[in-house]
Amino acid sequence: MTLTHAPQEGVLMRAEVHNHGFVELLEYMGDDLTIVNNAKVSFDQSISRELFESGDEATLKMIRGLLNFLARERHGSPWEAPEFRFRVKGPIFVYREWHRHRMAELNEESLRYSVRELPEHYVPLPEHVREQTGKPGSYSFRPIEDPGIVADTREIIDDISTQAFLAYRKMLDMGVAKEVARTVLPVGTYSTMIWKANLRSLLNFFMLRSTNPELENGGHAQYEIRAYSDVMEAMIRAVLPMAMEAFDTNGRIAP
Amino acid sequence: MTLTHAPQEGVLMRAEVHNHGFVELLEYMGDDLTIVNNAKVSFDQSISRELFESGDEATLKMIRGLLNFLARERHGSPWEAPEFRFRVKGPIFVYREWHRHRMAELNEESLRYSVRELPEHYVPLPEHVREQTGKPGSYSFRPIEDPGIVADTREIIDDISTQAFLAYRKMLDMGVAKEVARTVLPVGTYSTMIWKANLRSLLNFFMLRSTNPELENGGHAQYEIRAYSDVMEAMIRAVLPMAMEAFDTNGRIAP
Amino acid sequence: MTLTHAPQEGVLMRAEVHNHGFVELLEYMGDDLTIVNNAKVSFDQSISRELFESGDEATLKMIRGLLNFLARERHGSPWEAPEFRFRVKGPIFVYREWHRHRMAELNEESLRYSVRELPEHYVPLPEHVREQTGKPGSYSFRPIEDPGIVADTREIIDDISTQAFLAYRKMLDMGVAKEVARTVLPVGTYSTMIWKANLRSLLNFFMLRSTNPELENGGHAQYEIRAYSDVMEAMIRAVLPMAMEAFDTNGRIAP
Amino acid sequence: MTLTHAPQEGVLMRAEVHNHGFVELLEYMGDDLTIVNNAKVSFDQSISRELFESGDEATLKMIRGLLNFLARERHGSPWEAPEFRFRVKGPIFVYREWHRHRMAELNEESLRYSVRELPEHYVPLPEHVREQTGKPGSYSFRPIEDPGIVADTREIIDDISTQAFLAYRKMLDMGVAKEVARTVLPVGTYSTMIWKANLRSLLNFFMLRSTNPELENGGHAQYEIRAYSDVMEAMIRAVLPMAMEAFDTNGRIAP
Repeated sequence: MTLTHAPQEGVLMRAEVHNHGFVELLEYMGDDLTIVNNAKVSFDQSISRELFESGDEATLKMIRGLLNFLARERHGSPWEAPEFRFRVKGPIFVYREWHRHRMAELNEESLRYSVRELPEHYVPLPEHVREQTGKPGSYSFRPIEDPGIVADTREIIDDISTQAFLAYRKMLDMGVAKEVARTVLPVGTYSTMIWKANLRSLLNFFMLRSTNPELENGGHAQYEIRAYSDVMEAMIRAVLPMAMEAFDTNGRIAP
Repeated sequence: MTLTHAPQEGVLMRAEVHNHGFVELLEYMGDDLTIVNNAKVSFDQSISRELFESGDEATLKMIRGLLNFLARERHGSPWEAPEFRFRVKGPIFVYREWHRHRMAELNEESLRYSVRELPEHYVPLPEHVREQTGKPGSYSFRPIEDPGIVADTREIIDDISTQAFLAYRKMLDMGVAKEVARTVLPVGTYSTMIWKANLRSLLNFFMLRSTNPELENGGHAQYEIRAYSDVMEAMIRAVLPMAMEAFDTNGRIAP
Repeated sequence: MTLTHAPQEGVLMRAEVHNHGFVELLEYMGDDLTIVNNAKVSFDQSISRELFESGDEATLKMIRGLLNFLARERHGSPWEAPEFRFRVKGPIFVYREWHRHRMAELNEESLRYSVRELPEHYVPLPEHVREQTGKPGSYSFRPIEDPGIVADTREIIDDISTQAFLAYRKMLDMGVAKEVARTVLPVGTYSTMIWKANLRSLLNFFMLRSTNPELENGGHAQYEIRAYSDVMEAMIRAVLPMAMEAFDTNGRIAP
Repeated sequence: MTLTHAPQEGVLMRAEVHNHGFVELLEYMGDDLTIVNNAKVSFDQSISRELFESGDEATLKMIRGLLNFLARERHGSPWEAPEFRFRVKGPIFVYREWHRHRMAELNEESLRYSVRELPEHYVPLPEHVREQTGKPGSYSFRPIEDPGIVADTREIIDDISTQAFLAYRKMLDMGVAKEVARTVLPVGTYSTMIWKANLRSLLNFFMLRSTNPELENGGHAQYEIRAYSDVMEAMIRAVLPMAMEAFDTNGRIAP
């Protein structure tokens, strides 16, 4: 995973994901201090931004301690103070899981309104063509070793997705409404969305969707959404290092 | 649209939708009186269920009047009192719109966990193969008249969707994980979900997704989701006739 | 705590709380089986109600096992299937904490619209007049031992609250609007509300507000809201015994 | 109402409200262009920030037109893009209404944790001591004309609130826990909170709580919360002039 900082006007960080996807952090508000000051309003107190930005050791230690306390005791509301807006391009089957997270705001490209000129669908890299082992409730996945099966799988996915795209284009040429023609496109088709969430909702997303370094199989999430979650987590970590440290040291459980 | 009442144990009403879909009302709580009594708690008052169920004219008139007042003045919270649980089978492209409604609870079939033995995908009836007219922001849709184009469209949709299903099955046979193989299935593929929402959220759904009898083009929603919304609205109407009357006479605007 | 079952028409269970308060369970939908069947829709499967209600040992064991799995793995959405509506009478300072729980629906008595004829305010029982020990973040509370201080405290609370009530009545008599006169009433004043939430939201409430038997100080919540939470938990336990068992055995963490 | 811009480090705008209260806009993200670009992602399009900030007439006209279209057609989700964080000081009875708005995040001062040294409670200005006329559902309020009643009302409110404060302090001196002693304080007591919401939620707040210039009685909201809503609306208007213009010209109905 490679994060690019400020790759263009209006984008703070960017990372490529899969064969056509990306995540861009467009804007955010709030940082480690904001969380702490939201919590301290209970006592009608606050820590000054000047002191925080001075890097004063005692102040930073107090902030770390408070973040750790808030994470451990599951005081959830202060973590709702920071807010992040992303632009994302991902496959529809990934979005189907993503949009189950209701504490967020989004707008997405719609093929009722726009037309796709070129096919763009997910094809796994050879190392992500995988087989499943284990029982329901504790699945594991590992790369298929037979290179022939791997190559065939990738070809089947690319072929049938391209044919579906051509069928879609043919119907458009015949005068069929976009909203009807689009129904044949595969759930591997890429789509663009703007997605916005607060930190508490993001931590819940990371808890359920990121790679968990402490679990042998990396956790329950499907690799394809995990790749997005891992990238977003790295971006948030760059902005809120102390909050993410508290998340890690308290079992990666969303407060 | 045909509603069947109590077609089987555990289903209160059922209607078929499209070529493979359905809506079943499984359970609900609350009725017209519940909304009114939720509102009347502001005054620490209530209307007795006995009086309501006796069909007393003056009582029913008062209830109608209050529901109309609540709808007109947009007092939203009492409409959250009734709650409904449905089982639904619909195409994924319909669910993509449906799941944008965040004030609801749902569980859905997942092809990460289960395997599809037979193809089930949306194919429009001839009269629903349509073309689009008008400009962005005010589209209209009408049936395509040329029977050859209609037949070709239906054949293309069915063929490419079936081929995608066969590609999916082939990959499963090759040992590819279900969660990878499923990515080629079209967004027209049917899926089953259990969906639960309160009446306020449902009215918002109906406002945005049902056929609006007062608009020439029936409203903004795509026909395929509209068919579900219309069916659910008929079910709710059977349970809460006075609340739905107030919704209608106040411009079908969710309070 | 004493639960009364079906004390009157339209009330399933009732318990008195504090000097003037109560909790009534008015209606619910969903039970242990509903949660499990919401989860099993992922596999397009379900367990029949007939089998569940027959008390078949193997079926009940499977249901217990699944509920335990869902709680342990934090699969949250199936717990949103059961829904409960309560009528509650409690002091405003308790509601101030209660209404921070946003995943719920409510209507409450308003003194903008209704008038209070008699004073009703919270006065703690002698054993609940308490002092606080410990530091911020880990407070403990214990009964004040000096009976004179206890009696004085109860008298001060009752006296000043009654005087505030009389000031409120006097302003009403002078022709002052209800919405202005009410501003002098204490936060200990009782108020009635109808409150509705799904089980997942309730478990979050219990996690944060009930007495936790595994913690020496019983947990972080103030005694006065804890009394309500404990009563509601007992009611839910009567309706969903297996779900609550899974909650208990997985650390009382809301899934 | 007087808005002060950047009165101190970390505060963008500030206004005094009532005898002890205030609203401060601390931070925000998103503006008129953000809303429009969130909507345009449906078409996979956007308007450049450079063009927007150049003040190009054709661009601004297009943005105004789109905002108007989104408001008229009730396309709600793009209005969720801008986000605002406020610090507020207000009376508890105002917060009791405020916190019913669930689509928001907040942290508030708690007298479980902090101690109040001086009494701070709401006392209406003479012109806001009012009487109520009209029937339930269509109340009006007007200033009481008799100066004696006005003076007496203000004195009663101030006196009894001060006595309650003294009773609270006395109990603290006797060693009673803060969380018990606070229960006698009136709902007119001031408290400080940090409150954060997106624009869509704010427009809903303004629809229900601001003074509506088109209604003779100014709308349904109580004067004391209306004063806060009006101030916040003026702040948002300074940041998003075109969005607020679209809100006004479409009947002040939250999309």
